[in-house]
Amino acid sequence: MAELGEFGFIADLRRRLPPASGDLKLGVGDDAAWWQPESGSGILTTTDMLVAGVHFDLAYTSAANLGYKSLAVNLSDLAAMGAKPACAYLSLALPAELKKIWLDEYITAFLGLAAAYNVQLAGGDTVAASELVISVTLNGLVNGLASENKPVLRSGAKIGDDIYVSGTVGDSFLGLQLLQGRLERSDIDVSGATFLADRHLRPTPRVDLGHRLAASGKVNAMLDISDGVVADLGHLLTASGGLGAELDQAAIPLSRPAFELVTAGLTDCRGLLTGGEDYELLFTANPAVRSKISEIAITAEVALSRIGRITNTEKIFMSVNGVTEELSGRSGYDHFQD
Amino acid sequence: MAELGEFGFIADLRRRLPPASGDLKLGVGDDAAWWQPESGSGILTTTDMLVAGVHFDLAYTSAANLGYKSLAVNLSDLAAMGAKPACAYLSLALPAELKKIWLDEYITAFLGLAAAYNVQLAGGDTVAASELVISVTLNGLVNGLASENKPVLRSGAKIGDDIYVSGTVGDSFLGLQLLQGRLERSDIDVSGATFLADRHLRPTPRVDLGHRLAASGKVNAMLDISDGVVADLGHLLTASGGLGAELDQAAIPLSRPAFELVTAGLTDCRGLLTGGEDYELLFTANPAVRSKISEIAITAEVALSRIGRITNTEKIFMSVNGVTEELSGRSGYDHFQD
Repeated sequence: MAELGEFGFIADLRRRLPPASGDLKLGVGDDAAWWQPESGSGILTTTDMLVAGVHFDLAYTSAANLGYKSLAVNLSDLAAMGAKPACAYLSLALPAELKKIWLDEYITAFLGLAAAYNVQLAGGDTVAASELVISVTLNGLVNGLASENKPVLRSGAKIGDDIYVSGTVGDSFLGLQLLQGRLERSDIDVSGATFLADRHLRPTPRVDLGHRLAASGKVNAMLDISDGVVADLGHLLTASGGLGAELDQAAIPLSRPAFELVTAGLTDCRGLLTGGEDYELLFTANPAVRSKISEIAITAEVALSRIGRITNTEKIFMSVNGVTEELSGRSGYDHFQD
Repeated sequence: MAELGEFGFIADLRRRLPPASGDLKLGVGDDAAWWQPESGSGILTTTDMLVAGVHFDLAYTSAANLGYKSLAVNLSDLAAMGAKPACAYLSLALPAELKKIWLDEYITAFLGLAAAYNVQLAGGDTVAASELVISVTLNGLVNGLASENKPVLRSGAKIGDDIYVSGTVGDSFLGLQLLQGRLERSDIDVSGATFLADRHLRPTPRVDLGHRLAASGKVNAMLDISDGVVADLGHLLTASGGLGAELDQAAIPLSRPAFELVTAGLTDCRGLLTGGEDYELLFTANPAVRSKISEIAITAEVALSRIGRITNTEKIFMSVNGVTEELSGRSGYDHFQD
């Protein structure tokens, strides 16, 4: 940053941004951005802060991957409520030693993912700091949904609901283990290792799936998995009034590389359920709508797995080879975790 | 933070927050906040990031003053476009050594200012870091305005417009000089020193004034003064297509303590115009609407001073005791500054 200066960076960024269009009437450059969404739309807003050395390690996280991921995690939050993302605000605290090329790559990846979801970078801030801190706020819309355009909350689960997850779980945890050298790359083939590392560094936000699920009106509760299946299921159960769940370990969807590592005894299924950063959707729906949920999975081209059901026990149990275990304690869920 | 933990802090915060009400349907606690503004409203969004040691010094900035100011600077941005603030999002990167009582005082002051403007804290994030970083995003509304609910931009100034500022300028600069020990407290009486320090630590956002000016439809361009009168006037002139300005030094509004320091030769007027962080409004309007502007000043109970006029010179000149000087260079304005 020292070579360019904050104002040079902003001027550079403004030149690279497409002009505000559509519902965004005014983007970067005034005191605030001006957005004129369709009348009657609900506005959903999420924000995430990422700190170097805490949420990511620049030793194995490229500028491009970080640019992608810092928007992706916010897209995932909006996906979990069924919203369509619209306007992003990016604030960067930048250490003086950061190079201009690093920032260029960061911004290029951020804007690339934004364009893929019709998100406009509408504002932000850049400041000097001794460590890299990234704060992204994302506004989205709920409209075109069932139930009077109500987003899907985490608090609507009902006893007897099926529990679903999208995609596969635990890949990000294993990818991080590989990147940190806690799992040996020689224990897994190259394509498997690349897949797992990518799942950690470049998670796919389930925006289209989340919107379709919400629009169907068939989903009772939904959130995205950032703290791990067990912890996030715990959040959903707590928010829904203190419910419980029974999971079937055999139904937990694993990728081929994750399955191979479990089979080889190099990781256990518990770590995959508590490792976090999956950015898959976890949701519940009445068993009567299973065929509708299957249709949505096909249309959205994302696999959905039915991993258990909601109970009234206030605890999470998992059936493992016919034996039922309680999942709780330190690796389980925490009522106050967010 | 080590004594409480991130999750304890969030649980604590949630207990202290009033339940979401009015247009805010869902606040802190889900993947995103859900806000349902009046149909047809324009959404204005601003965001600011503050870093310890860069934007504030904890040696002379109390937790309460920082909690207040970190929201106030965003309120000022919305005021500058005529918007009514609505929902705030607060992200904090917190060093481990920060005490719970510091955070309590920070949040109490933040929520106190929020309540004064009917702003609801709707979401945020708290993360660990080695230095304190604060990121606030604020959503507001434009409605009830003239010109089809269009906010007032910085780009609408016209040649011949009067230039106004609210309140007094330079107080924050002098307050900072006092807090940093660059001005001696013995050079000024106690009430004057307190006034100047407060103007730096607890600026008053001109939300009501900004809304009234925008609603009148009489203001052509407006922004808030964060970089100093000269720099921010420069931003307005650049945004308005490369215009110029003539200022009259005798018309620059100074507070009694600032005036005394100038008279005593302890500061010069130039520093007051370039020091920044005034968080007053600077705007332009056609001379034909002077009486209307005076009426608004009376209704909003904020003094407005007419300090000059817009020209076609692409430069800023100031008349000082009958001699015209050009204001530019390092202490002047920068086309790329934001």
